[in-house]
Amino acid sequence: MNAAHLNADTLPFTKGHGTENDFVLLFDERGELDLSPALVRALCDRRSGIGADGVLRAVRAGNIDEGKAFAPDTWFMDYRNADGTTAEMCGNGARVFVAYLEREAGEDAAEGVAIATRGGPHTVTALGGSRYAVDMGAWRLDAEGGPDVSVHGWNPRPAVSVSMTNPHAVIAALTLDELAAADLSVAPLVDPTPPAGVNVELVVPLSLDGARGRLRMRVHERGVGETRSCGTGACAAALAARSWAGDAAPNVWDVEVPGGAVVVRIEDGRTILEGPAVLVADGVLDLRSVAPSPT
Amino acid sequence: MNAAHLNADTLPFTKGHGTENDFVLLFDERGELDLSPALVRALCDRRSGIGADGVLRAVRAGNIDEGKAFAPDTWFMDYRNADGTTAEMCGNGARVFVAYLEREAGEDAAEGVAIATRGGPHTVTALGGSRYAVDMGAWRLDAEGGPDVSVHGWNPRPAVSVSMTNPHAVIAALTLDELAAADLSVAPLVDPTPPAGVNVELVVPLSLDGARGRLRMRVHERGVGETRSCGTGACAAALAARSWAGDAAPNVWDVEVPGGAVVVRIEDGRTILEGPAVLVADGVLDLRSVAPSPT
Repeated sequence: MNAAHLNADTLPFTKGHGTENDFVLLFDERGELDLSPALVRALCDRRSGIGADGVLRAVRAGNIDEGKAFAPDTWFMDYRNADGTTAEMCGNGARVFVAYLEREAGEDAAEGVAIATRGGPHTVTALGGSRYAVDMGAWRLDAEGGPDVSVHGWNPRPAVSVSMTNPHAVIAALTLDELAAADLSVAPLVDPTPPAGVNVELVVPLSLDGARGRLRMRVHERGVGETRSCGTGACAAALAARSWAGDAAPNVWDVEVPGGAVVVRIEDGRTILEGPAVLVADGVLDLRSVAPSPT
Repeated sequence: MNAAHLNADTLPFTKGHGTENDFVLLFDERGELDLSPALVRALCDRRSGIGADGVLRAVRAGNIDEGKAFAPDTWFMDYRNADGTTAEMCGNGARVFVAYLEREAGEDAAEGVAIATRGGPHTVTALGGSRYAVDMGAWRLDAEGGPDVSVHGWNPRPAVSVSMTNPHAVIAALTLDELAAADLSVAPLVDPTPPAGVNVELVVPLSLDGARGRLRMRVHERGVGETRSCGTGACAAALAARSWAGDAAPNVWDVEVPGGAVVVRIEDGRTILEGPAVLVADGVLDLRSVAPSPT
């Protein structure tokens, strides 16, 4: 499928997910599609549209204003949230995006593909077996100066602050039962609250030493609520668990999220997120059926 | 698309909805598809599958054991809930099902099409403009002997009992604001509780006399939670509002539900449900991607 197949009434799409963070993928190499916020909302509506956490549009960087800083033939990941707003980067989305490019555009990610995003360039490498590694870029951790986080019904707990470009506050849960019972249907209280909000991770370290650590987590994303997986959140959780573990801490972490499992590799100055990418279905949307509202 | 296109790895599907009650539609005229509960759950998963409230499989009655009571070339609506269980009848689903038959199987519903369901035969008639009328069959109303219903945080209110084959308890909300603020995230308490449970409708009558009544409603479906629309619930709400209105009450009701609007026509011994049917997208699922669990 390519932009030549687009007409006024139909829109080819693919549905995919990475650890159940799900996306509608659109192939628009030449940047011809008018992807309005209303159309994004209509596509992502889980009842009246296709349904997804967001839209990933594949467009050559030279064909989109926001891609002008990149080589023109670089693939730009035009990522939109389900509410129609633009977003910078999504680790789960980047895996699905490159799996899609391999199939739709003949890219070969075995040696790594550099993609362009609003959050800068990221390299994604195919690992085989529908798994991909995403260079998540720089991180910064502040173990001491973090806010206090109160999950609904819990007393405040001191958080580790992690910046993955976006901000995270990571607290420990005491047991797997406590983690499972935590009420994340309401946003945790964060004191002090950063002006732009913060993502909150609840973490139970399961194995803290040896070559490979293991943890289970849940995440509350700012402005969204609880999600089944968050790529930057998984990285923040691994970084926090490593800081709790002290000198013997491993640099490779198996991270269990509600939507599956990912691996976080911590290197000097950056993290690598490894996980699955699944292309579920291909289809054609009847644009007359979604009739997006103009707001 | 027809069963001849099915192979081991792919499954053609259509996504549709009626007032945002949404379905995955499968065309399986000869009854060749092994539609296991696990596959239904995988299809309906909103993150890792396609996502829907249920599956509607189109199969000739003669090709499915449960259709033996019907003429063999009647279309049987094999309706499954998202949890994989079978279901009898769904008024919103029947509209979408017949819109799909018109397009996929060349049926013409202008004069009415008789479909077979686990709840018996139902006639569905195309009204033009993607609207359909469904004969919902017999109803029974008990204005006096209904249970008390307590919505979370409300005092108990006496309900009108309505049977639409499935059971309903209908209570009045005092204002549109009260209706909008009602907490249906927890199941209302019903006293006494019928052994098989009950659907609860909250109704604000907006216009009670003249040729055409109007009401707004919300619904809590047993075993499901709040939904954006419920066909039998809309009929039950109109019947209850008519009983509250007394002698001057109209027999035709415009019913506003969270997912849109339907019309209920009350006749001697039966109700007719009119509303839209939307076919949103056609696609092909990669069966390898959903890997249903065997439970």
